[in-house]
Amino acid sequence: MSATPAIAAPGAGQPLGVTTIERRELRPDDVLIDIAYAGICHSDIHQVDEDWGGSIFPMVPGHEIAGTVAAVGSSVTKYQVGDRVGVGCMVDSCGECEQCRAGREQFCVKGNVQTYNARGFDGEPTYGGYSKQVVVRDAFVCRIPEGIGLDVAAPLLCAGITTYSPLRQWNVGPGKKVAVIGLGGLGHMAVKLAAAMGAEVTVLSQSLKKREDGLKLGASDYYATSDEATFDTLRGRFDVILNTVSAQLPLDRYLGLLAVDGTLANVGAPADPMSFNMFSLLGGNKKLAGSMIGGIPETQEMLDFCAEHGIGAEIEVISAEKVNEAYERVKNSDVRYRFVIDTATIG
Amino acid sequence: MSATPAIAAPGAGQPLGVTTIERRELRPDDVLIDIAYAGICHSDIHQVDEDWGGSIFPMVPGHEIAGTVAAVGSSVTKYQVGDRVGVGCMVDSCGECEQCRAGREQFCVKGNVQTYNARGFDGEPTYGGYSKQVVVRDAFVCRIPEGIGLDVAAPLLCAGITTYSPLRQWNVGPGKKVAVIGLGGLGHMAVKLAAAMGAEVTVLSQSLKKREDGLKLGASDYYATSDEATFDTLRGRFDVILNTVSAQLPLDRYLGLLAVDGTLANVGAPADPMSFNMFSLLGGNKKLAGSMIGGIPETQEMLDFCAEHGIGAEIEVISAEKVNEAYERVKNSDVRYRFVIDTATIG
Repeated sequence: MSATPAIAAPGAGQPLGVTTIERRELRPDDVLIDIAYAGICHSDIHQVDEDWGGSIFPMVPGHEIAGTVAAVGSSVTKYQVGDRVGVGCMVDSCGECEQCRAGREQFCVKGNVQTYNARGFDGEPTYGGYSKQVVVRDAFVCRIPEGIGLDVAAPLLCAGITTYSPLRQWNVGPGKKVAVIGLGGLGHMAVKLAAAMGAEVTVLSQSLKKREDGLKLGASDYYATSDEATFDTLRGRFDVILNTVSAQLPLDRYLGLLAVDGTLANVGAPADPMSFNMFSLLGGNKKLAGSMIGGIPETQEMLDFCAEHGIGAEIEVISAEKVNEAYERVKNSDVRYRFVIDTATIG
Repeated sequence: MSATPAIAAPGAGQPLGVTTIERRELRPDDVLIDIAYAGICHSDIHQVDEDWGGSIFPMVPGHEIAGTVAAVGSSVTKYQVGDRVGVGCMVDSCGECEQCRAGREQFCVKGNVQTYNARGFDGEPTYGGYSKQVVVRDAFVCRIPEGIGLDVAAPLLCAGITTYSPLRQWNVGPGKKVAVIGLGGLGHMAVKLAAAMGAEVTVLSQSLKKREDGLKLGASDYYATSDEATFDTLRGRFDVILNTVSAQLPLDRYLGLLAVDGTLANVGAPADPMSFNMFSLLGGNKKLAGSMIGGIPETQEMLDFCAEHGIGAEIEVISAEKVNEAYERVKNSDVRYRFVIDTATIG
C-alpha cells in the first residue's frame, strides 16, 4: 500500500476536502499512474450528493483521468514508465463473458468495477481520479497519443467516449445531418466529434447564448429550443439527434425533427420516467436509443481519432481548493465546457 | 364509372351493410381487379368506429385485398388479365419524392393515398376491399405468386408486410432470438415469418391459452406475461422483441428482456402516450423502434418470401352477412387468426 493525496467527499452532499488515501501494491498486471489532470463530470456531483443512492464514503470522485505511467507490475508489457495514459469510468470487469470478450466491458455480465464509488472484485472500495496517483489493471488503461495535451485529454475518457460511441453506432459521417441537444460537457464534445466525422452538425440549445461557441466548435447551425418556430423549421431534418441532456424533454417534438429512419440517441437520463407517443416512432420507422459510455477498445479508438483530428475538450483548469466552487458552477451550467483539476495542486 | 357491390359502413360505429359503389374508368396505368378475398384488419374497425377521427362515410373498409386482374389500362405492361394480384394499405403516392423513389411509398413526403377512408389526388374518396372489384394504379398492385391461395394471401398485404418489414430491418435470421408480443392477426404472422427466417421464436402472450397454436406456427417457446416469473426467466434473452399489441405495456419490463444491443420494435400504438425510464435503454445500448407497414417493393419481396416458404395467414373465411359479427369477435380477440371475407358472397 502507498499513501497518496486526494480530494474526497466525507459524506453525502458534504464539501470535498484534501485527504490521504491508500493505493494498493502493484499486482502483476497493474499500472501505477501519476495523475496529471482529472476532469469533473456532472455524475461526480450526483454521486457525491447521493442522488442515485448507495454512495460509498469517503468518496474520491473522478473518472476522467490523464497522466503518465510511474511503475508497472511484473507482467505488464503494454505500458512502460513515462507513457501517457488515461483511465475512464471502469477499472475492472470479469474479462470472460461474451461482452468482455467483445471489448464491451461496460456491459460485463458480472458487472464491471466503476473507477470510484464502487467495490473491486477484492471487496475494497475504489477511489477515483481526484488524486495524485492511481493503480489500475493494465487492461483498463488507454494510451493517450502524442499531440493531445493531458489536460484536454482527461475529459475524453468520459465525455469523449460517451458521445463518440453513439455517433459511431448510428453511422454519423459525411452526408449525415446530426443535431446535438445541449451544449455542455458532453454536448460540446459531440459537436466536435460529429463535425470531425464529416457530418453537418446543428446545436439545439435552450437559448442562443452559446451560439458563437457552437459554431466555432464545428456546428453549421444553432437553434434555440425555447423558440417554438425551431420545431417547425427543423421538422424532419435530422438523421441522428444526440441528446446529451439528463432532463425531461418533450420527446415527441424532438422525434418530429427526425427524418425517416432517424434515431434519437440518448446518453443521459432523468431519474423519472419519460413519456412519448408510440405514433411518433411509427411514422418514419424512427428509433429511440440509449448508449452507455463505450468499451476499452472503442475508448482507445476514440483517443486515436481525437489525436488524428486535433480534438481535445474545451476546459477550465482549476486547483484543488476550487473544487467545491466548481461543483456549484457545474450545477448552474456555468462552465465552458469542462473543469479539469490540476492534481499537482492537491495536498 | 362502373358499379360494383360492396360492404359499407354508413356512419361512425354503424353496422356495415351491402351497397353499391362506383369504381372509376380505367386510366392508362390502372388495373381492374376482381377481388376474391378481403381480410378484416383491426384498423378497419378503428376507422369505422372513428376512433382516430376524420373518417369519411360511407366507408368501404379493407386493405388486405387478393384477386385476379380483370382488365388493364392502355399503358399497363406489368400485368395482364387473369394475373393473381394483391393490394395493401396504399393505392397511390407522389412517385417523385426521395421516399417514393426509394420504394418507401408509406413515407411519401406528399402523403400517400390510403386504400380506403382517404381521398385520392383527384379528390375522390377511396373505397377498400370489401367489394367485388377495385381499380388501382399498377404501381400499387403486387403479384401473388402461385402456390399461395388467394384466401390466405389476402392478410399478407397488411398483417404480413407490417411484421415482415421490422423483422428485416432488425436483421432477424439464424442465431437470433426473437420474441413476439401478442398472438393475434399480426402476431401469428410475425411468428411464422421469424421462424421461416431462421430465428428462434418465443411468444409472449397474456395467457397460455394459445400455446399449442404458437408452437405449431413455429415458436419454440411460449410464456404468459401475466406470470411475474416470465420477466425474471427471460431477462436479457432477446435480440429483437416485436410488439404487435396496440395497448399500453410496461415498456421497462419488456426492455429488460432484451440482450445488449437489443431492439423492442413496435408496429402498433395505443392512442395515449406511453412511459418508460430512459435508463432502460442506456443499460445495454437498447432501442425502442417503430415500423409502419412497408413499401411496395418490400411487399412484393414479402409475398415472394411467403410463397418460397409456404406461408399464408391462418384464416376463418366468412360470408358478407357475417361482417358485423366478425367485427365483434375481433374486438373480443376471438379469431384465429384473421377473418377473410369471401367477396363472392357480397350482393
